Amino acid sequence: MPKLNDAFRNLNASYLFAEIRRRTKAFTDANPGARLINLGIGDVSRPLPPAVVRALHEAVDELARAETFKGYGPYTGYEWLAAEIARHDFAPRGITLGTDEIFISDGGKSDSANLQELFARDGVVALMDPVYPVYADANVLAGRSGAADARGHYAGIVYLPCTAANDFAPALPDRRVDVIYLCYPNNPTGAVATRAALARWVEYARANDAVIIFDAAYEAYIVDADVPHSIYEIDGAREVAIECRSFSKNAGFTGLRLAYTVVPKAARGRFADGSESSLNALWHRRTASKYQGPPYLIQKAGAAVFSPEGAKQVRALIEYYMENARLITEGLRAGGYAVYGGRNAPYIWLGAPAGRSSWDFFDTLLTRAHVVGVPGSGFGPSGEGYFRLTAFGSREQTEEAVERIRTRL
Amino acid sequence: MPKLNDAFRNLNASYLFAEIRRRTKAFTDANPGARLINLGIGDVSRPLPPAVVRALHEAVDELARAETFKGYGPYTGYEWLAAEIARHDFAPRGITLGTDEIFISDGGKSDSANLQELFARDGVVALMDPVYPVYADANVLAGRSGAADARGHYAGIVYLPCTAANDFAPALPDRRVDVIYLCYPNNPTGAVATRAALARWVEYARANDAVIIFDAAYEAYIVDADVPHSIYEIDGAREVAIECRSFSKNAGFTGLRLAYTVVPKAARGRFADGSESSLNALWHRRTASKYQGPPYLIQKAGAAVFSPEGAKQVRALIEYYMENARLITEGLRAGGYAVYGGRNAPYIWLGAPAGRSSWDFFDTLLTRAHVVGVPGSGFGPSGEGYFRLTAFGSREQTEEAVERIRTRL
Repeated sequence: MPKLNDAFRNLNASYLFAEIRRRTKAFTDANPGARLINLGIGDVSRPLPPAVVRALHEAVDELARAETFKGYGPYTGYEWLAAEIARHDFAPRGITLGTDEIFISDGGKSDSANLQELFARDGVVALMDPVYPVYADANVLAGRSGAADARGHYAGIVYLPCTAANDFAPALPDRRVDVIYLCYPNNPTGAVATRAALARWVEYARANDAVIIFDAAYEAYIVDADVPHSIYEIDGAREVAIECRSFSKNAGFTGLRLAYTVVPKAARGRFADGSESSLNALWHRRTASKYQGPPYLIQKAGAAVFSPEGAKQVRALIEYYMENARLITEGLRAGGYAVYGGRNAPYIWLGAPAGRSSWDFFDTLLTRAHVVGVPGSGFGPSGEGYFRLTAFGSREQTEEAVERIRTRL
Repeated sequence: MPKLNDAFRNLNASYLFAEIRRRTKAFTDANPGARLINLGIGDVSRPLPPAVVRALHEAVDELARAETFKGYGPYTGYEWLAAEIARHDFAPRGITLGTDEIFISDGGKSDSANLQELFARDGVVALMDPVYPVYADANVLAGRSGAADARGHYAGIVYLPCTAANDFAPALPDRRVDVIYLCYPNNPTGAVATRAALARWVEYARANDAVIIFDAAYEAYIVDADVPHSIYEIDGAREVAIECRSFSKNAGFTGLRLAYTVVPKAARGRFADGSESSLNALWHRRTASKYQGPPYLIQKAGAAVFSPEGAKQVRALIEYYMENARLITEGLRAGGYAVYGGRNAPYIWLGAPAGRSSWDFFDTLLTRAHVVGVPGSGFGPSGEGYFRLTAFGSREQTEEAVERIRTRL
């Protein structure tokens, strides 16, 4: 028998969303008549915008003719899409990016999981707690942690608690760390970072030879004018920060799979012998060696998001979901729940009723209200006692879920 | 500055196909009038089969309506596609696979690069030499090697030379190894493994606590009746072998990105403390933690490949390319070249004229015949002095390339 990667033994027994699927399936198998409403996994429910649908049909037709057929594309994505991204997502905020600083991929999950390959194995990772589980899991599998303790803290990883007590704004680490994952607007708490808070992180990274991996997957949901959309709005961030974006939640690409990561040429790191390299060069090398780029037709769909028509349709999608967020927030707040998020983010973070654990509340919600949410503890130990609902359902289902939670619990 | 992954320093300066693109671009920039024929990177040139085009249009229409919209799919791919794969690619050869033994992904490159994450970092890797460079590169980046020597051998990796001297059939390793990558039909040599040869590898793996990663991306090109299509045709292989397949070269999905990997439940490995796990369970865990599955519409396109109409169209594509292979093989052989492969594989492997290096021949072919191929040395040290041409061009370009090589060199 071959020798296995021992890091698998450190990984907690089951991936959060897989466990939710398992419990949900067990319930529906036992209660086939139950009409479940899923406000759990952050999956969108509205169909693709018409501009995207048209771009997909056109791209399929191109692939059907020898004259316009496209096979392998560039490993890092097509330059015409990178150019649209630079022009629409960054230039209006005064950020100038080269197309070779933008790496187009098949999803924020892949990028979040893979970026750690750039860094030394003995580096110390800091994570917001709670947060999207992929950052921790990928680093655990890469051997940057020991096993988890009883609360779910992996040994060796530095946790930055985000709770109601600190308004979900984590303090800087109390020791030096190498890699910091920040997710703003935050999944799952819905919190945003002010300009001053982000500037403190950039300053910390510059002073401590650290790098920030800034996950801005929910950037499109920001409504408050003083909240930065990109970490590169902060002076000095280019030298110390990588930024990840996604087409999943703004344009509804969860099933199409498209995202991108910005690795500025100014960001550098150091090998063990003291020599330096730009992170951009290494990420190019990693991408060319291990990845082939997303499908051509999906990238054409991505470009359609930036057309005037596409942009308008995406804006309407976001407004639709944010109306759901408002309904959940106001409905549950009126029902006596402590409710956070839901303003600059499509996630509503609520406190479980006093003394209830997150999974206990999950089971109650599932069995009494037939509503699926996500236990806060699944996002990290400091999520215990909290619960995440998403705004990505249909209007009807969202309204009914709120009504059920208020009347059946 | 953050500490970098030192393994990047071991990786050879540039990924083979990136270097080919660079030299080709330099030539065309200097010679804008040159009409290049690219028989280099193994990219297909024929458009998608009509059955696939129809499936894609239908899937796009599903995504355009709320009632049929699909967001996130299963991490390991849709079960209906796995069922088609089991039914069409394996059952006819007497191989019974569960749908949960089939992992659908965005490409053979990703699978080839990622599977090494299952195994201990101090494991010894054995590679056919020459072979598809991704196996080596991924293991180098994972820290399983030292730097390369002057010939390009990475320290710590066991190379299995495949040259005309041994009829491109490598001997078993002369020491114990942990992970063996086999690629049959072989990229780049076009060699196939007989049943007896594969049985020896399975026997070796079983006797030596090794695992075989069997890359069968070109399986559809096999014409000789006695050549196994799957390693699972060999008794005992399920316990020691993982098999990778792709939709890229049979159905022309190089730009759509779809592949799958079989990880049988019977295959097991051992952690450092002696406890065991099935490789299937770990690969499920890795996939759920780091990957989100390929796009829905691409998986629908994959299912169309198995329809009676799709299968017929794919067969016609393969016959088209294999006629190219015949034209190149016979044309160059008549021109005095030593030609290998091209019978059960879409690659033609030729000996460069005596005393010429692979890159030297690349430059000659590019500058005199305006034909792009791949230097054999890019696939490993034992590829030095050889050269790869692909059968994936159009008929006209293939015929012209053969004519140019025969008349201009």
